[in-house]
Amino acid sequence: MKSYRKELWFEVPRRRALLNITAQVEAALRESGMREGLCLVNAMHISASVFVNDDEGGLHRDFEAWLEKLAPEKPHAQYRHNDTGEDNADAHLKRTIMGREVVVAVTEGKLDFGPWEQIFYGEFDGMRKKRVLVKIIGE
Amino acid sequence: MKSYRKELWFEVPRRRALLNITAQVEAALRESGMREGLCLVNAMHISASVFVNDDEGGLHRDFEAWLEKLAPEKPHAQYRHNDTGEDNADAHLKRTIMGREVVVAVTEGKLDFGPWEQIFYGEFDGMRKKRVLVKIIGE
Amino acid sequence: MKSYRKELWFEVPRRRALLNITAQVEAALRESGMREGLCLVNAMHISASVFVNDDEGGLHRDFEAWLEKLAPEKPHAQYRHNDTGEDNADAHLKRTIMGREVVVAVTEGKLDFGPWEQIFYGEFDGMRKKRVLVKIIGE
Repeated sequence: MKSYRKELWFEVPRRRALLNITAQVEAALRESGMREGLCLVNAMHISASVFVNDDEGGLHRDFEAWLEKLAPEKPHAQYRHNDTGEDNADAHLKRTIMGREVVVAVTEGKLDFGPWEQIFYGEFDGMRKKRVLVKIIGE
Repeated sequence: MKSYRKELWFEVPRRRALLNITAQVEAALRESGMREGLCLVNAMHISASVFVNDDEGGLHRDFEAWLEKLAPEKPHAQYRHNDTGEDNADAHLKRTIMGREVVVAVTEGKLDFGPWEQIFYGEFDGMRKKRVLVKIIGE
Repeated sequence: MKSYRKELWFEVPRRRALLNITAQVEAALRESGMREGLCLVNAMHISASVFVNDDEGGLHRDFEAWLEKLAPEKPHAQYRHNDTGEDNADAHLKRTIMGREVVVAVTEGKLDFGPWEQIFYGEFDGMRKKRVLVKIIGE
């Protein structure tokens, strides 16, 4: 069994955004030389997400509106977490809905995806440098 | 380390349904001959889900009502994704809540489950053939 | 490839609570002797959760209020699952939002976490003994 580790860094210039990181994960997989195994991709921050969905702009606007409905950012004072001086309680909740991580099968040296599967980094408290971990185990 | 891969195909004759696929995943595990490892089961489509919960009909009706409350199908025009000619934006949101994948431990040749854990395929945009991936790595 | 398995038991003296179990998972990892691999941590019960977030009391109160808004416990009669004599349908829904499992990378013998990542057991139907599974594969 071999293992491979890489950090991907992002600095999103606004509070919230969804970034397609599939190409970066594929590049990490090629670099690893792995042919068969499992690839874990996870946000290393608790106000961000890694998830699989569709790369369609309309859907991304739907995600933004929907997350704001289920876990609104404002008023900041509605959240006890924000009593600590933070203003990002909503980001912790949004990330919970979207998920921390995905585990993707590696088959014949490729991410074993269905036709529309793409990996996204979901930033919910941006404007600073944050990391995603790619860890692959296999052969 | 060994690896094993199998696709499970489903064609649900209505828009939404929850199917217990535990027996099919167990059959794949037996076929793999794996004794110890990890078993990834994921929807290969972004409007469907794989999740672990209880095989109880009342609970499944609760899931249907609850998902319709959190991410209603209609009116279709409430979603920007549906401006593309699709009508399944709600399916992408419902699958997000229910999750894309589960990772199950394999111990002594069996899915290492608690007493009530069962694996379900959650279809949220059916009436066509769709796939689930089973990938097992271990020994 | 090596594998390691451990059950962690909890008996929460109230219906709902979030417990930081990071130290117990780290102890299991040390006991395993594993240096590189993947560590699966999952609830073995379908009315409980394992998730990664922040160990901050205000945020935990926000989670409680938010989950009660999205999937309220009462009235019990609003859920068909509770027609079976159960009263825990809401716990199944809450656990769905919070997630069944986390997969954590193991790197140089440690849980490969970002600065604030901690593992929690989310109990949504307590006052009885319940289990979490830790399964590590690697070398």
